[in-house]
Amino acid sequence: MPISLGDLATRFGCELIGDPETVIGGVASLQTANYESLTFLSSPSYKSLLPSTKAAAVVLRAEDAKECQVAALISDNPYAMYARMAGLVCPEPVFEPGIHAAAVVASSASVADSAHIAAGVVIGERSTIGEGSYVGPGTVIGPDCTVGDQCRLIANVTIVKRVKIGARGIFHPGAVIGSDGFGNAMTPDGWVKVPQLGGVIVGDDVEIGANTTIDCGAIEDTVIESGVRIDNLCHIGHNVRIGEHTAIAGLSGIAGSTTIGKRCMFAGQTAAVGHIQVCDDVIVMGKSFLSKNVTVAGVYGASFPAVNAKSWAKQLARFRRLGSLIDRVKNLER
Amino acid sequence: MPISLGDLATRFGCELIGDPETVIGGVASLQTANYESLTFLSSPSYKSLLPSTKAAAVVLRAEDAKECQVAALISDNPYAMYARMAGLVCPEPVFEPGIHAAAVVASSASVADSAHIAAGVVIGERSTIGEGSYVGPGTVIGPDCTVGDQCRLIANVTIVKRVKIGARGIFHPGAVIGSDGFGNAMTPDGWVKVPQLGGVIVGDDVEIGANTTIDCGAIEDTVIESGVRIDNLCHIGHNVRIGEHTAIAGLSGIAGSTTIGKRCMFAGQTAAVGHIQVCDDVIVMGKSFLSKNVTVAGVYGASFPAVNAKSWAKQLARFRRLGSLIDRVKNLER
Amino acid sequence: MPISLGDLATRFGCELIGDPETVIGGVASLQTANYESLTFLSSPSYKSLLPSTKAAAVVLRAEDAKECQVAALISDNPYAMYARMAGLVCPEPVFEPGIHAAAVVASSASVADSAHIAAGVVIGERSTIGEGSYVGPGTVIGPDCTVGDQCRLIANVTIVKRVKIGARGIFHPGAVIGSDGFGNAMTPDGWVKVPQLGGVIVGDDVEIGANTTIDCGAIEDTVIESGVRIDNLCHIGHNVRIGEHTAIAGLSGIAGSTTIGKRCMFAGQTAAVGHIQVCDDVIVMGKSFLSKNVTVAGVYGASFPAVNAKSWAKQLARFRRLGSLIDRVKNLER
Repeated sequence: MPISLGDLATRFGCELIGDPETVIGGVASLQTANYESLTFLSSPSYKSLLPSTKAAAVVLRAEDAKECQVAALISDNPYAMYARMAGLVCPEPVFEPGIHAAAVVASSASVADSAHIAAGVVIGERSTIGEGSYVGPGTVIGPDCTVGDQCRLIANVTIVKRVKIGARGIFHPGAVIGSDGFGNAMTPDGWVKVPQLGGVIVGDDVEIGANTTIDCGAIEDTVIESGVRIDNLCHIGHNVRIGEHTAIAGLSGIAGSTTIGKRCMFAGQTAAVGHIQVCDDVIVMGKSFLSKNVTVAGVYGASFPAVNAKSWAKQLARFRRLGSLIDRVKNLER
Repeated sequence: MPISLGDLATRFGCELIGDPETVIGGVASLQTANYESLTFLSSPSYKSLLPSTKAAAVVLRAEDAKECQVAALISDNPYAMYARMAGLVCPEPVFEPGIHAAAVVASSASVADSAHIAAGVVIGERSTIGEGSYVGPGTVIGPDCTVGDQCRLIANVTIVKRVKIGARGIFHPGAVIGSDGFGNAMTPDGWVKVPQLGGVIVGDDVEIGANTTIDCGAIEDTVIESGVRIDNLCHIGHNVRIGEHTAIAGLSGIAGSTTIGKRCMFAGQTAAVGHIQVCDDVIVMGKSFLSKNVTVAGVYGASFPAVNAKSWAKQLARFRRLGSLIDRVKNLER
Repeated sequence: MPISLGDLATRFGCELIGDPETVIGGVASLQTANYESLTFLSSPSYKSLLPSTKAAAVVLRAEDAKECQVAALISDNPYAMYARMAGLVCPEPVFEPGIHAAAVVASSASVADSAHIAAGVVIGERSTIGEGSYVGPGTVIGPDCTVGDQCRLIANVTIVKRVKIGARGIFHPGAVIGSDGFGNAMTPDGWVKVPQLGGVIVGDDVEIGANTTIDCGAIEDTVIESGVRIDNLCHIGHNVRIGEHTAIAGLSGIAGSTTIGKRCMFAGQTAAVGHIQVCDDVIVMGKSFLSKNVTVAGVYGASFPAVNAKSWAKQLARFRRLGSLIDRVKNLER
């Protein structure tokens, strides 16, 4: 949607340095921007690209404006400001309301008139789809589910059963919400399945990545609070609670019955074991895992970045001989 | 399904302390239970909730009965006993037998009369679906597959090709069984794909988690023995064999041609490298991986729980200076 | 497809030791091969099976031929040679060109006459499917995508939007290409979604595993170069570039904006952090992760293979006391 710099500045409350009549037609990186592109400078590592950008305008911090040869939109948080402006300049594609002839909606289900139900969608008994929501091709919504207003289920999503989703949720392809938790009781004859009878409660403004899975609770519900962001290929176990605005990066897992606080950040391939409590504002470094309750906000981790394999073989050998080194020090101390 | 405590006790061979006429209408946790709820006490960490529960009855060990103010069902294994009773009180939803008009079944495929084939299902040539099995919406079953009796493929499952599944299997959404193994031969011109021509054999009473993948064998079959439980987002490579009643938790991977014994347990984010043999009754701790044959039952692991990041930075620096520490000790010894 | 040993030898430029009239009807392992099987010997660990194989012929190195009691096809790279021959003997199943009645193709999409569009497929606006390509059941192709010639999308694949795929690509079930990257900007009110406006460019001869996800770029494109092989359940972040013929094994993740060189190999459960450059011919050992630029080809890693849990507990305790050990050595040095 073309929009003038003046309109952008007014709408988002930014100071504009430059011609308010310039029209923005798209977004681009500093390097690839052209006369109608909006771009941004947030990380100092891209600052060297600023003087030569051919963008129409750059969203940046006040202190970077003097090196900007084109129009500047000033913001304390240029990345977030760019994100909001880009959402306006390049909006999500519009869709026609209605239920595609090749969708199958149960007779007791209810779909808002302004929602779009794509080809190949199957919606189960007693489920409801809210106003302005988009349910993309191949998505399956089981029985007793609620999808709130303005949600987008992109394609091939599975909302299994007893899942309640708030407003403006985004669910990427292959995401599975409400699958059975991993509940098994050992007996001399092998495992007995523990029925998984709870649901999943998802707040507002939640985004769930491609092929991520969130299990239903065993008895009570699994809860994903509002504003949570979960990346691709993550696993959220049964009866987990994820606090507001927590973000979890790819290939991470939160084991059953664990509670994660608000505004936590889990890097990629991290984990939390089951049945622990993690307080607000905890950051977990990549490849690390939390093994017990965390009661103090802060950064936690324990991982070994890769080094040359020969060097690692030596380090590993030294590590394994630590016991004998300790004995040698003991001997020396005697 | 409402059932009296007397009936429950008789059917499962439990001692009942309390009124056999009390009717159970559902299950709940100790805390949320009401006058018609069945609940259980297994882990000592929940024992403090026992005296105040408002449940109709609690499944528990004999030694916990005296602190129980409501009816008690006595079991040596209360979690497994609860699981069985809950399966009776809250049975899986019933379904209508038949093939939905929006399913596509190949002419040479065969579907038992008592099976349910949901909307959006596609079944390939020469595949068969057993008695009482449920094939949920969006599921694709390729050619030459067998789904045994009383199986449940929840939704959007893919059974790719040459897969033989026993009775009572449960396959959660997004599970992929029989995808090509990762077989590539390097040449000066790049990778050549090694045709993956085997199948997958799945025993009885197997449960496979959401978005888990099990590759077909390269020449012979990949084998998942009876009673195996695999959680979400696990990867089982080609020609792997998983022994009876082994359980594998989320985000774990078993690399190609490895054999895992019976009753093993892999915690989350674990792995076994390819081409190894792991004996029965091996437990792998979270985040750890097996790098060679395991011939002795027991618990194995090697992982570092996260600590405060500053503390970790120091520990990592000390680890990297181990070589110089060893030299210093050598010097002292001279 | 039955073929004589003479024909095989001629077609692939192999020396044949044995009767050129012998007809090959299938492939098998050394152990299970019968009178019409082609098999191969590549790894020395299987050499003991060679003398007793009942195969029609074995593809092997010249130096192994003397121990072979049956016909031999000589190759310097028997695994790759077997792979090529197996592709001829056991070709992919043929399919009928055409669009199934239960597929939904947008009016502005274009499907080559020789392509097969299976039941349950949905193809979006302005997308094109090339000659001889197979789009399997349940696959969703969103708007503005190109699938090249001779591709195979097995089943339930999702090609989300703005994805351009070259020739001969193979996409296994559950793969998601072009999902939104994990772009979020923090504000005092929580996360703001950064619109993900780029696409994905996939070269020729790329194979993508089951349930693997490749995100679209934020502004510019994510790029998977020709000949790349990615296993199951891997995550490729936005704006990543993977160089030609690189192979990535299961459950691995490449974080956003990282560039991986050509012919790299990532073992299972590995990772690279975001915004780094990795040169050609880098091998990453299992469970390890790259934390910074890699400028020298070679093998990199840092992982601890599992050991007996009691032994690990001791090793971990010693590791944690390294600081005090260093102090004790300092004391001794004084």
